[in-house]
Amino acid sequence: MVAPDIHVLSAGSALPGPPIDNAALARRFGMDRLWVEWVDTFIGTRTRHLAVDLDSGEVRYSLADLAESAARHALTTASVDPGEVDVIVLGTATPDKLMPATVNVVADRLGIDEVQSYQLQSGCAGAVQALDVGRRLLASGEHRVALVLGGDVCAKHFDLGVDLAELKPSELVNVVLFGDGAGAAVLTTEPVPGSAAIPRVVNRLVGLDRAPGQVLEWFGPAERPSGRVAVQEDYKAIETSVPTMAAEVLKELLDDLGWQSGDVDYLLPPQLSGTMTARIVEVLRTPGAKEVTRVRETGNNGNAMPFLQLEQALADMVSGDRAIGIAVESSKWIKAGFALEKL
Amino acid sequence: MVAPDIHVLSAGSALPGPPIDNAALARRFGMDRLWVEWVDTFIGTRTRHLAVDLDSGEVRYSLADLAESAARHALTTASVDPGEVDVIVLGTATPDKLMPATVNVVADRLGIDEVQSYQLQSGCAGAVQALDVGRRLLASGEHRVALVLGGDVCAKHFDLGVDLAELKPSELVNVVLFGDGAGAAVLTTEPVPGSAAIPRVVNRLVGLDRAPGQVLEWFGPAERPSGRVAVQEDYKAIETSVPTMAAEVLKELLDDLGWQSGDVDYLLPPQLSGTMTARIVEVLRTPGAKEVTRVRETGNNGNAMPFLQLEQALADMVSGDRAIGIAVESSKWIKAGFALEKL
Repeated sequence: MVAPDIHVLSAGSALPGPPIDNAALARRFGMDRLWVEWVDTFIGTRTRHLAVDLDSGEVRYSLADLAESAARHALTTASVDPGEVDVIVLGTATPDKLMPATVNVVADRLGIDEVQSYQLQSGCAGAVQALDVGRRLLASGEHRVALVLGGDVCAKHFDLGVDLAELKPSELVNVVLFGDGAGAAVLTTEPVPGSAAIPRVVNRLVGLDRAPGQVLEWFGPAERPSGRVAVQEDYKAIETSVPTMAAEVLKELLDDLGWQSGDVDYLLPPQLSGTMTARIVEVLRTPGAKEVTRVRETGNNGNAMPFLQLEQALADMVSGDRAIGIAVESSKWIKAGFALEKL
Repeated sequence: MVAPDIHVLSAGSALPGPPIDNAALARRFGMDRLWVEWVDTFIGTRTRHLAVDLDSGEVRYSLADLAESAARHALTTASVDPGEVDVIVLGTATPDKLMPATVNVVADRLGIDEVQSYQLQSGCAGAVQALDVGRRLLASGEHRVALVLGGDVCAKHFDLGVDLAELKPSELVNVVLFGDGAGAAVLTTEPVPGSAAIPRVVNRLVGLDRAPGQVLEWFGPAERPSGRVAVQEDYKAIETSVPTMAAEVLKELLDDLGWQSGDVDYLLPPQLSGTMTARIVEVLRTPGAKEVTRVRETGNNGNAMPFLQLEQALADMVSGDRAIGIAVESSKWIKAGFALEKL
């Protein structure tokens, strides 16, 4: 156990551009009304925000842009000056460049310097990993304030030239499933009224002998990327494993803390799609908990998502309320989750 | 200060294929004997190891391949079973894919599961960052053994179709400067005879208001990478700043530990190229220290390098010997370094 409780002071988020609904996607890609109904019913994601402009193809937001904006929101809400930040950690699967790390670009824009800075390469568990690393570094007693960030921008993989009518259903899903965004949270060693303690985090690789459920490639200039598949999902494995793993994370957090499922006031479930989240929530069986779900409006924006949920939960929770957040990474199977208790 | 000293039990490394000398590069790219002499004299790197086969263009080693091999060497030397590993951390600028993280592929191959696993996206400071994160996680008292890894494979950026005679000198340098490789170290909370304590690590972003000294791009399938510059270095900034920053890291480590420069028995300096390292060593002025430099034979293999130096230092050091290792990241300017004291 990490000895002292670490507290989250605030969370913030940033979503690029206006929400894009399924009808707008259908218009852009030449799909019909039936397709829109299929997305509404079987995916359950109504809108998403994209860094790329659908009409011009221009990429209007970088991950650094969104992470900077989310960080400013979180710092302002917490009344923390960037100069007070001792540690900065970003979790992402889609950094702007390989070098410099996006986290250091964000730090520079915020005026943060002379600190430990880390960028964790991770799928959906990266936000919780960043939270955990930030929390553990603070728990050492050396530092007071950590700025933790998560976000993803899928513009480099979002091919506007694709013919949706030609895609296999498994590839079609990717076009409607994902969104772009970033989120941030400010952690501190000091229990401030209005903040929430993080009494426990689960963050563990469980990928032994299991094929990756998601593969995301990058290309270099010495390669010929055309025609190569850059995004692959094993949706069958994801649909089978994620609800079970989410339930295991929930049970582990409750057992470790001596909480009952009835003690959970807010549930922040995994956010693959509206439909998948609904299925997972059924399996988790915490009927007394208010569900904090954003995916239907934001799309699955990867490592931004837990911070979006956290932002809403912190605004809604009152003193004494308890929350459980869960993220499952299917790329090589990581169990991740955290508990919150509002002071 | 991190409370308890953490100890490094062993280090291991893996280099792909045979050493490739400057004459072999000259033959492959159609350059003459004068060019070879220029590289020998002004770069000072005689050979490097490459993951790509120069003749066939086939990429024969992935980062996961090399990191797995380095980890096996380090674990065997330490007589530590993969099942004993509690935490695994990899630092790299060039992961095999965006998802899954390479660290989790390596963990799977080694049979490591149910652990915290992190992959740090970083340039030359990633190895020290991984060492620092591993050390800090162990210092929390929750875990006993950390496997820390570093490595880079530049095959995706190594364009065999390039005409060297057409390149600007600043681009030409990239072809001869870099190599591929991986390294690993086993850390433990237990002071074992023959291990070395790590009494201090420096690891700090100092990039405020400074342009990146190195930029490394990645491309997605929605982009047209051809013709775009994917690797950029500001060698003037690097040559000016790295020696100064290295001297600052050395001074900080010595001051923090109350060591004199005459106390340093082994010096592991930054390894950009043979020539640059020689220049840095002059600035560092530790005449009593034995220099541990590998770059002349291995090329600059990024996040593998500090582990290659560590492996050699651990083999050479005797009880009571002290060492200082220094890495400087120029991509967005990070000071990194560590002290060692052999038990």
